Amino acid sequence: MSISIILVRPQMGENIGAAARACANFGVRDLRLVAPRDGWPNPKAVDMAGRAIDLLDDTTVFDTTAEAVADCQFVLATTSRARAVNIPAHAAREAATLLRQRVAAGQKVAVLFGPERTGLENEDVAAANGVLYIPVAPEYPSLNLAQAAVVVLSEWFAAGEPPAPDGLAPAAPREELQGMFSQLEAALDDVNFWKVLEKKELMWRNIRTGLMRADLTSQEVATWRGMIRALRDGA
Amino acid sequence: MSISIILVRPQMGENIGAAARACANFGVRDLRLVAPRDGWPNPKAVDMAGRAIDLLDDTTVFDTTAEAVADCQFVLATTSRARAVNIPAHAAREAATLLRQRVAAGQKVAVLFGPERTGLENEDVAAANGVLYIPVAPEYPSLNLAQAAVVVLSEWFAAGEPPAPDGLAPAAPREELQGMFSQLEAALDDVNFWKVLEKKELMWRNIRTGLMRADLTSQEVATWRGMIRALRDGA
Repeated sequence: MSISIILVRPQMGENIGAAARACANFGVRDLRLVAPRDGWPNPKAVDMAGRAIDLLDDTTVFDTTAEAVADCQFVLATTSRARAVNIPAHAAREAATLLRQRVAAGQKVAVLFGPERTGLENEDVAAANGVLYIPVAPEYPSLNLAQAAVVVLSEWFAAGEPPAPDGLAPAAPREELQGMFSQLEAALDDVNFWKVLEKKELMWRNIRTGLMRADLTSQEVATWRGMIRALRDGA
Repeated sequence: MSISIILVRPQMGENIGAAARACANFGVRDLRLVAPRDGWPNPKAVDMAGRAIDLLDDTTVFDTTAEAVADCQFVLATTSRARAVNIPAHAAREAATLLRQRVAAGQKVAVLFGPERTGLENEDVAAANGVLYIPVAPEYPSLNLAQAAVVVLSEWFAAGEPPAPDGLAPAAPREELQGMFSQLEAALDDVNFWKVLEKKELMWRNIRTGLMRADLTSQEVATWRGMIRALRDGA
């Protein structure tokens, strides 16, 4: 189960298309429109939607916000932070967690977005259980509709995302590193790298520690061994 | 201190302008460009930037990625998840925390974004300490440059954001609630609401619990008391 994104009286078809794209990017399939200014369907929305056009085909259009949320059990209204409405206000991140919890409990949930110029009216907000705001810099708080949808949807997606893989190839086994270190140490000994022998212990430990931080893979260890050999043979 | 956003070989002026807007929205002032396709300045970027134009005025342009990151101590390269590069990969959220930590430690940090069509080349990624990816739905993973910037920047901002205020007017003091409850209980007693007196204790507790969840303000308690009085007097 996912959430419904409801654009209330959207003005620009481009923004409807961009919102559809953002829905598709973040795994949301239910986009609803309340009284779009330029009617529906809207070719500008199609142009902007790209491959998310299948989502626009399934978009339902309602006359009023009340009708659009009629089947929903939990609704958040996206507003600018300044809005003083006496219902709970949640930053987008916290809102995403709430939405996930409601969906996990089997509820139908929706997020409302207002018209580009004016935002949601108080009457629309009154249909919501809470307000969702996007934290922004106070000096430049104006997010456009498509950007706001991207933030809300990416938060929704991230709230259900498994932890990040680390993206690393598996590090080499220690014995391979030891082999490389032995080779390197012998090479450095041969070229009298340490000069003052009392300093060798500390210097050598520092060199190994630095290389350990690199978390080398087996492939990289082989490359390093080749480099060491080449350098030494070249000397 | 903040981060630098670096657009590498951006193609569309509109995306540069949208990225500048997103920077301004999320408190970032340093936008750098590497070899923008259509030269610089670019009137389409200005059109799209809106009030964030002051940020474009300060934008610096470099010939190569290496030059653009020369003063940076920690760099993340934004790539699609699929990219197999043997450096650590961080989801946008985790990356934002890492960037905040580096900035708090006094480091200069930057995030790279690649050209619209192709993304960053391996050579660009090689200048980075790690990869940043935006978790997206596998069925529709293509985020455009401006959207990707919005996600990364909103994560950056949210990672330093203080906890959400709850947006509620202060709840009424308990004594006001008690006054309301006493009035309501008396009214219900008067109209013989409980019918079976043994059930009153549980019913009455449930009624109060429900009202407590509403977290009523003083103003709302006064309204409720008026409602209760009006209902009872009308009976």
